[in-house]
Amino acid sequence: MTDEIASYAGEPTLPCNGFPDCVRFDDRGLVPVVVQQEGAGEVLMVAWANAEALRRTLDTRTSWFWSRSRKELWNKGATSGNMQQVKRVLVDCDADTLIYVVDSPGPACHTGHRSCFFREVPLG
Amino acid sequence: MTDEIASYAGEPTLPCNGFPDCVRFDDRGLVPVVVQQEGAGEVLMVAWANAEALRRTLDTRTSWFWSRSRKELWNKGATSGNMQQVKRVLVDCDADTLIYVVDSPGPACHTGHRSCFFREVPLG
Repeated sequence: MTDEIASYAGEPTLPCNGFPDCVRFDDRGLVPVVVQQEGAGEVLMVAWANAEALRRTLDTRTSWFWSRSRKELWNKGATSGNMQQVKRVLVDCDADTLIYVVDSPGPACHTGHRSCFFREVPLG
Repeated sequence: MTDEIASYAGEPTLPCNGFPDCVRFDDRGLVPVVVQQEGAGEVLMVAWANAEALRRTLDTRTSWFWSRSRKELWNKGATSGNMQQVKRVLVDCDADTLIYVVDSPGPACHTGHRSCFFREVPLG
């Protein structure tokens, strides 16, 4: 963070009272996380975080998640090399969803696609 | 959709086999939905959809969700007037998360903010 005022969606952001006070985890201890590329703004993936994943993300500035299927913490790109550098973490109005704003030089999807959202549902 | 090839995150998108085949709802019958402003790319909100909300979204090209607290379908902006025009619906690699790409002329957050993500969790 520099001296410039932080903003998102064209409005200044407010600091929250600090983790974990400003994040409400669900009854499984999880929140969904939208991973968004800094600058271009594309949504790369959506995954889940528990309190420990969020703590590690804030501490290491790389993206940590909780795998619901493997029931373990994972550090995105630790095996593939496509690490995500976390620039900011935003939290929504009801404190139950996060955005990790990242720089992701490589593909974010395990399929090799830049974004996991590479398929389209036709409108009616 | 025009004749131009649809793309997202700099890559062409693939059509999926049609709703609901290409969307997997969770054991509550829900998927998370990221609502993203077309063009600028800002994430405006994250909410939930069930199959009926998605069907109405595809049919009406306005954004429908399922309220977990009120246990009812809601059409965003139907009371406030800040309707979201849905331009595209994207689905992720494991078919359990959606993006509604919308044009949202007004604020998307019930607080009056442009985006629900107006608060920032400080990095460590």
